[in-house]
Amino acid sequence: MSAPLTDPQTALESAAAASAFVDNSFLLLFSGMVVVFMAAGFCMLESGLVRAKNAATIALKNISLFAIAGIAFYLVGYRLMYDGVDGGWIGTFGVWSPDALDEPSGSVASAADWFFQMAFVATAASIVSGTLAERITLRPFLIFVVLLTAFIYPIAGAWKWGEGWLHVLGFQDFAGSTLVHSVGGWAALTGAIILGPRVGKYGPDGRIIKPLPGSNLPLAALGTFILWFGWFGFNGGSQLAAGTIEDISAVGRIMANTNIAAAGGVVAALIASEIVFRKADLTFVLNGAIGGLVAITAGPLAPEMWQALLIGGAAGVIVVITVPLLDRLRIDDVVGAIPSHLLCGIFGTLIVPLTMTADGLSRFEQAGVQLLGVAAIGLFVAGTSTVIWLGLNAVLGLRPPVEEEMRGLDRSELGMQAYPDFYARQ
Amino acid sequence: MSAPLTDPQTALESAAAASAFVDNSFLLLFSGMVVVFMAAGFCMLESGLVRAKNAATIALKNISLFAIAGIAFYLVGYRLMYDGVDGGWIGTFGVWSPDALDEPSGSVASAADWFFQMAFVATAASIVSGTLAERITLRPFLIFVVLLTAFIYPIAGAWKWGEGWLHVLGFQDFAGSTLVHSVGGWAALTGAIILGPRVGKYGPDGRIIKPLPGSNLPLAALGTFILWFGWFGFNGGSQLAAGTIEDISAVGRIMANTNIAAAGGVVAALIASEIVFRKADLTFVLNGAIGGLVAITAGPLAPEMWQALLIGGAAGVIVVITVPLLDRLRIDDVVGAIPSHLLCGIFGTLIVPLTMTADGLSRFEQAGVQLLGVAAIGLFVAGTSTVIWLGLNAVLGLRPPVEEEMRGLDRSELGMQAYPDFYARQ
Amino acid sequence: MSAPLTDPQTALESAAAASAFVDNSFLLLFSGMVVVFMAAGFCMLESGLVRAKNAATIALKNISLFAIAGIAFYLVGYRLMYDGVDGGWIGTFGVWSPDALDEPSGSVASAADWFFQMAFVATAASIVSGTLAERITLRPFLIFVVLLTAFIYPIAGAWKWGEGWLHVLGFQDFAGSTLVHSVGGWAALTGAIILGPRVGKYGPDGRIIKPLPGSNLPLAALGTFILWFGWFGFNGGSQLAAGTIEDISAVGRIMANTNIAAAGGVVAALIASEIVFRKADLTFVLNGAIGGLVAITAGPLAPEMWQALLIGGAAGVIVVITVPLLDRLRIDDVVGAIPSHLLCGIFGTLIVPLTMTADGLSRFEQAGVQLLGVAAIGLFVAGTSTVIWLGLNAVLGLRPPVEEEMRGLDRSELGMQAYPDFYARQ
Repeated sequence: MSAPLTDPQTALESAAAASAFVDNSFLLLFSGMVVVFMAAGFCMLESGLVRAKNAATIALKNISLFAIAGIAFYLVGYRLMYDGVDGGWIGTFGVWSPDALDEPSGSVASAADWFFQMAFVATAASIVSGTLAERITLRPFLIFVVLLTAFIYPIAGAWKWGEGWLHVLGFQDFAGSTLVHSVGGWAALTGAIILGPRVGKYGPDGRIIKPLPGSNLPLAALGTFILWFGWFGFNGGSQLAAGTIEDISAVGRIMANTNIAAAGGVVAALIASEIVFRKADLTFVLNGAIGGLVAITAGPLAPEMWQALLIGGAAGVIVVITVPLLDRLRIDDVVGAIPSHLLCGIFGTLIVPLTMTADGLSRFEQAGVQLLGVAAIGLFVAGTSTVIWLGLNAVLGLRPPVEEEMRGLDRSELGMQAYPDFYARQ
Repeated sequence: MSAPLTDPQTALESAAAASAFVDNSFLLLFSGMVVVFMAAGFCMLESGLVRAKNAATIALKNISLFAIAGIAFYLVGYRLMYDGVDGGWIGTFGVWSPDALDEPSGSVASAADWFFQMAFVATAASIVSGTLAERITLRPFLIFVVLLTAFIYPIAGAWKWGEGWLHVLGFQDFAGSTLVHSVGGWAALTGAIILGPRVGKYGPDGRIIKPLPGSNLPLAALGTFILWFGWFGFNGGSQLAAGTIEDISAVGRIMANTNIAAAGGVVAALIASEIVFRKADLTFVLNGAIGGLVAITAGPLAPEMWQALLIGGAAGVIVVITVPLLDRLRIDDVVGAIPSHLLCGIFGTLIVPLTMTADGLSRFEQAGVQLLGVAAIGLFVAGTSTVIWLGLNAVLGLRPPVEEEMRGLDRSELGMQAYPDFYARQ
Repeated sequence: MSAPLTDPQTALESAAAASAFVDNSFLLLFSGMVVVFMAAGFCMLESGLVRAKNAATIALKNISLFAIAGIAFYLVGYRLMYDGVDGGWIGTFGVWSPDALDEPSGSVASAADWFFQMAFVATAASIVSGTLAERITLRPFLIFVVLLTAFIYPIAGAWKWGEGWLHVLGFQDFAGSTLVHSVGGWAALTGAIILGPRVGKYGPDGRIIKPLPGSNLPLAALGTFILWFGWFGFNGGSQLAAGTIEDISAVGRIMANTNIAAAGGVVAALIASEIVFRKADLTFVLNGAIGGLVAITAGPLAPEMWQALLIGGAAGVIVVITVPLLDRLRIDDVVGAIPSHLLCGIFGTLIVPLTMTADGLSRFEQAGVQLLGVAAIGLFVAGTSTVIWLGLNAVLGLRPPVEEEMRGLDRSELGMQAYPDFYARQ
């Protein structure tokens, strides 16, 4: 059963290629699994940060949006994002299907690639659900998720990861500070503005009149830990290859940088909240971890460890400073996703030129390209999202009646309670 | 230190075999780990779906059954299931031990195989604990778990995965829609019938007189997400090999299909519960995800993505339709495990011939074999379970006194409360 | 692009070395990820076992200590532990940085090794946070964590894993029963003695006057399951290599032994608590699992499965017997970490000679070396910890005012509540 005509050198190269194919696929599959698990992290974070009367609804939204994202990315998104973009703005319309098993093309199992990329899509939608929690009804939210995951996210993604026009210009966004986190953040921001704040949150001057704290902080902490765990797959897997010494060493550096950036975000947010508010604040610290993770995501390989630590630390400070600013603007972001995902995502993308540049670009040129990418994607996502939110508001309405919001969406939307055995405050 | 007598071709083949051994073992070990973690998923799902007064007891049952399952499978089950079945009905009696390290037999580390298979056993037992929660005392439940995991599951498993008589006939059950989920489901169903419903659940006409909702729905959602995550190991690892382009590509397809089936279950259950009950219902959606996962498990490799999506979607509908039917029959299934594990397991097994057949079998013959397998394993498990439940009831009694059940098992069985700091309704 | 001057044998060996490098790095990276996730396990275990009024603070401590541990290990600890210890007592002072990507030294990516080892450090600190919960203020605790993870843990670790003097003597501690769990345990024990018990816990005779039960037992169960899951990486990854049949087979045996030891701990603690207290006690069972895991950690490869089962079982009994003894001594260990981590860690280390010895040592000599290692590390950690705790107490004070402790640290330290929507007992 041997192949006597093959010379040893060729046989060895063929075996090495097969081995790399296996290793690359392993990386994407196991990384994809933990990125999928980030959906649990978002669900716990958001369930813990809403009031008890909305906790079942947010859980339902989170599992539903993850399901919808996978289906939409299969039916439309994957090919729109990756198939034949070729320097342009958009791929092709059509359903994805894996390559035949025995004709592997490329250096990784096609289904492993789909699985990994699919796991990213839901992240953007999860960001939206967190910001808009407690006051948007189920139906318009889920319709928005369909449009976000089938069209908005894939088109923005095509520009860079699909090797579209931003890629050609040299835009850098390794694992999606902009393509994933800012995309979700812009969609969340426009939604928050159009929806308006929760009943009873702000007075006429924009000052908080009621803090509306999260109902289950240990669960929110769990969610953050799950996100931290999943982020190793998010960033490490985005190396997309693990079959050589160079690639697996890169994955290792990425994971080390990812961890220290998150750690920097935690410590900086802890210290900053002590300074600014004279209290260690758990929710700031949790969002500091997330902010640090988001910020390192645009370029987790190039920085030295100390740079990654500082990037994460700066993100932690950004979170602590901008959360009150949003409140000043009467933008009600229930879980703090706009500071940690949108603002830290922008920050992480703009900081990339300090540690790396695309071939042939100066640091200054790279900064320009980064700014262009951030602005283009921001305009596209904010624009399309605004149109959709306004359309949904006109056709279906986005909010429940005030008295239903005050009783909690769990009763009006689901007819159930998240914690029915316990006496809860309204 | 080289071996100059080996010709290059032989050396290359030997290196490739070693590399595949490593890859295969990696697959089983990392998949096994996440399947073990599914025990946490069942624990959270069930803790969240029982009333607060029984939440500590169900947690104790879940960790204990996982421990017992591992020990029983080591002492008896593994060899009964896999050792020398050879077309027959049963393997050998005896304790398992790993192969010596330096004499690897087969294509995978023997301990990796044990570890992976061990992780499956507890799943069946977890299904039973969920259905029978809130009204069975600890001791008879744990004795049942010993018998289920040492004998019933391994014997049924021997028929197919041990290469017993059903395997010879061509029965298909890739990762255990029948061998794992229906086995647990039949044991749960017989137990539920013999135990009877919880006090106060049904009126004399079988109508629900009190809904007895779950006490911590975010925790139940977490449990479902953990199960979803673990299922990638459950199905993906069941390829049992990952060292070639063909095998790892198959693992990728399996994971993609597994995910889209779960997604289909979620969306279908969401829509169906909107139609049938005029409400989006979180527990139906969670069970829809599980139902979709169970249904795809019998054959996760062969279907096209759209087929996997439809299989999962059908399972989601099955869940929504059959939960009320069980209530009509006064069968009290606390977590909805019988619809999602037993019924969707049967459905997933019977649907296999639409996408694949064993060598030499027509689609029609395959359908016959699938039906035979479902019926044979159903009869065996239901029969042996019935005998054991009746015996345990006669000797030890299965239920606590009514007043203890009403106060909650946490007080009577453990002398503790799951949430002692909170004022909870009885 | 081939290298025609290389003879086939050399090319094959070079390919095999690269393949092992990749496999080894994979093992450390994926194992490291799940060990990082153990931080979530400790956080949930401890959040669930404290009273509701301290649950947010303990979550804040857990995420902060994990962040601090990573930074301290990067800035100081890693090189102090691993760089140039060479039979001595201590490595070098300095910041760690990964090897250049294209000059891999050793058999694994340097960043993968840092990542894996970093994940271990926080475990020791998590043990401290659990024991001292509910009565230590944030600032001195976090300062202690800095010193523990930058200096105490790395120096003790240098003696064995850094190939220091204990390693030269033949001390055996595969994955850290002593180096991780006892280190944390000694720091916790000295802290508990110096801090004193929680207000209202003991009467003047040392008897418990109020049980102060954990507020969220399902969360504590989740934490234990996460730890169990993470322990496969903890022990399995400590093989440090996976690129050969021998190594991956060893990883498999380690995981199988780890699981059965945990299972033994569960079942033994369940039976022992039934015998001693006439009740199945969930917290004992959870700590039994942890105790079994800690005990097998010193030598998870050598034991036969039945030996691993017995080691875990003995640990489960140790937990049940020693928890009341600590209370007799008025040592208030909120989560039971001293029995499960310190005592089971000592037990696991001392039992190693029954299943293995270092080259050239008799079983009796090995026992002496094990005792020496346990004693030396115990003295070092207990001594340095005592000095630090006393110093912190003198300079900052360790405890909040009594009335703040009674209202709960969440209000005084954070100004927030873990479960603000629920009516909770004080």
